[in-house]
Amino acid sequence: MNIFSEPGIEDWPGIISRPSASNIDIEKTVTDILSDVRVNGLSAVKKYGELFDGVSLQDYFVTEDEFRESKDLVSDDVKNAIDVARKNITLFHTAQQESVVIIETTRGVKCWRKTVPIEKVGLYVPGGTAPLFSTLLMLGIPATLAGCSNIVVCTPCDKDGKINPAILYTADVLGIRKICKIGGAQAIAAMAYGIEGMPSVYKIFGPGNRFVTCAKQLVGKEGVAIDMPAGPSEVAIYADETCVPEFVAADLLSQAEHGTDSQVLLVASNIGIVEDIKRALAVQLEQLPRKGIASLAIKNSRAVILQNVDAAFGLLNAYAPEHLIIASLKSTDVVERVINAGSVFLGNFSPESAGDYASGTNHTLPTNGFSKAYSGVSLDSFVKKITFQQLSEEGVQNISGTVSVMAAAEGLDAHANAIDIRIRYLNNKK
Amino acid sequence: MNIFSEPGIEDWPGIISRPSASNIDIEKTVTDILSDVRVNGLSAVKKYGELFDGVSLQDYFVTEDEFRESKDLVSDDVKNAIDVARKNITLFHTAQQESVVIIETTRGVKCWRKTVPIEKVGLYVPGGTAPLFSTLLMLGIPATLAGCSNIVVCTPCDKDGKINPAILYTADVLGIRKICKIGGAQAIAAMAYGIEGMPSVYKIFGPGNRFVTCAKQLVGKEGVAIDMPAGPSEVAIYADETCVPEFVAADLLSQAEHGTDSQVLLVASNIGIVEDIKRALAVQLEQLPRKGIASLAIKNSRAVILQNVDAAFGLLNAYAPEHLIIASLKSTDVVERVINAGSVFLGNFSPESAGDYASGTNHTLPTNGFSKAYSGVSLDSFVKKITFQQLSEEGVQNISGTVSVMAAAEGLDAHANAIDIRIRYLNNKK
Repeated sequence: MNIFSEPGIEDWPGIISRPSASNIDIEKTVTDILSDVRVNGLSAVKKYGELFDGVSLQDYFVTEDEFRESKDLVSDDVKNAIDVARKNITLFHTAQQESVVIIETTRGVKCWRKTVPIEKVGLYVPGGTAPLFSTLLMLGIPATLAGCSNIVVCTPCDKDGKINPAILYTADVLGIRKICKIGGAQAIAAMAYGIEGMPSVYKIFGPGNRFVTCAKQLVGKEGVAIDMPAGPSEVAIYADETCVPEFVAADLLSQAEHGTDSQVLLVASNIGIVEDIKRALAVQLEQLPRKGIASLAIKNSRAVILQNVDAAFGLLNAYAPEHLIIASLKSTDVVERVINAGSVFLGNFSPESAGDYASGTNHTLPTNGFSKAYSGVSLDSFVKKITFQQLSEEGVQNISGTVSVMAAAEGLDAHANAIDIRIRYLNNKK
Repeated sequence: MNIFSEPGIEDWPGIISRPSASNIDIEKTVTDILSDVRVNGLSAVKKYGELFDGVSLQDYFVTEDEFRESKDLVSDDVKNAIDVARKNITLFHTAQQESVVIIETTRGVKCWRKTVPIEKVGLYVPGGTAPLFSTLLMLGIPATLAGCSNIVVCTPCDKDGKINPAILYTADVLGIRKICKIGGAQAIAAMAYGIEGMPSVYKIFGPGNRFVTCAKQLVGKEGVAIDMPAGPSEVAIYADETCVPEFVAADLLSQAEHGTDSQVLLVASNIGIVEDIKRALAVQLEQLPRKGIASLAIKNSRAVILQNVDAAFGLLNAYAPEHLIIASLKSTDVVERVINAGSVFLGNFSPESAGDYASGTNHTLPTNGFSKAYSGVSLDSFVKKITFQQLSEEGVQNISGTVSVMAAAEGLDAHANAIDIRIRYLNNKK
């Protein structure tokens, strides 16, 4: 852990800098994969599956039999946990639904917005070391709540063509039946352009490795919507003298176990707190199966001592963390200072892992400082809002002067004429 | 106008296809401009201003004197029109504000979302033939309503270093004081990376030419948020036997005058309507100052006859127009069929130009079929929504089992430990 004591604001950029997230070095490879899948469809997907993952399949779509089998392979404990998490996530996201409100901006001019689901969405669920069925909950629940009519999931299978049963069970519970055994950049390509048996989608969600991230960036540039740009997972913790150092250490480690590139930042109000947390870290690290990964991430992590709470939150907002834990009994006093963060955890009993799984908030969040401009995934991510306006005869008369004058001032005569022709018609009617 | 009578669904893709919006041919040029401005700041901006626009300035920022002068140069008519438009746009966007709702997903687990303004935003206002002060209203009003603390505007000046006074007057009225006389890709670069006198921003808004669009795509790939991908402006009109053909013609022309690449699509319930509209078009075209541009756009436009209303809206949704006018006395009966559109205009007295200027809805809308996944600009575009959770001792106990089981099933032991350590602490306290 690198410790910075009372750094001046001029030192902040160095302290909060993240490793470069550039994918320039793999962009050519990913561009080629995208073009190949766009032109050659499933046969290109097969080729890259064999090449990169050593996987060769007859059928790329999960069958009814596989869904059925998955039910027997998932323990009751896990099933119950998925049920509870699903209930909480559903509650929180249901509250994000909006009703239509009609605003009469001028007499006779009614305007409103209507929320309409994005018809076709693609969810990417990474494979690899951890079978992230929680990611499927976090993307699948708002997608189904929003009413997206066509939801496809891509996730890599193992060498035997199997997908982790907890992922299949979760999909089944959510009513998502189109699961495609494809991973990597070719999965993003398949969702963006469509392949035999799977339509192209309008928006792609989900985390992934650098190839997946790069592919999402590239199809995003072409106009396929994506959830958000991605980077390694992060936590920042603000800890004052009312924190419980063992809890803070456990929270830092739960981020650190994600990978050696995990970003971990501790901001404490005095050096004693940092010392206590370091001691707790040493004890807890010893007991972790993923000790190797976590200890490297912790070694690269940063602890900053800033006694002044304005300075502390100034630094935290400049960092704009994905997750921010406020480990303090006074968390509600300082929470108004948070400007940039993905999701915030208040007090000593709100660990990040609560939000990762089951508090109800979404765990798909902006990393890499993107919380300065981006929100995490929510129900909003799966809908668009269409505006409507309806002008009565009185309404068009009431704003006709305004529109004509502005259109003329912008040199757009046909715009003015579209109003004027209606006014003449109404005048002739009289 | 190309007429298609009762085309089968297999012919739709050809009918609704848009010209390719690829910017591949200029990507290298724009990439070079971006890098140059990133490294060399204002001096690079100056260089490109001289090279592309023949503009050489001492001071790139609008001065107090210029703001003052603009007040005298704008007519009272235009000032009043700006006032009315501003009032309506403000009313409609204010209604988009959200209050915080705390959801207790499980006893002791409180979750909520809070709307927080994006601190630094950049608005691009194109110059060129039309001085689009309406665009500044449409971007500046929600930006100020949202509470963005740092709003910068880039807009190209003329050869004498002047900006259209209506644009300056609008900025002044909105309280936006940072106006930078830069256009083109170098303006997007200046906002994305910052230059002397202007900070880098987190999100960039506004329409522009191909260079501006390409620059927005490229900085977007790097993680600077952008409002939406852009393409030429479009209108689709559904007209049945209750439309007023002269109004439809006027609306088609108001789109067509934007440029020869404007997209205009008419869907009518019978051929007689199309014939009537064509006659009205011929008459009105003659009277337009921008006749040349408009007649070319109309020549390339398409009229589709589909008697069946399901088919008609099927085609319109597949096209996903930026603007959709429902020119019918029965507009409210069919409006539920709209799935993909940016903004919808209902009935015979709701021309697109009403929404372009003054009905209150935003005119920055998704083109090129992007309304399948994107919304137009709204108050939402200038904020992010941060999620919060606060667990009480009871709360963490209530979801501890769920989190531990899920974390273990995903192989993330430190995640489970962050919960378990708190439960042990609480058990010891008892």
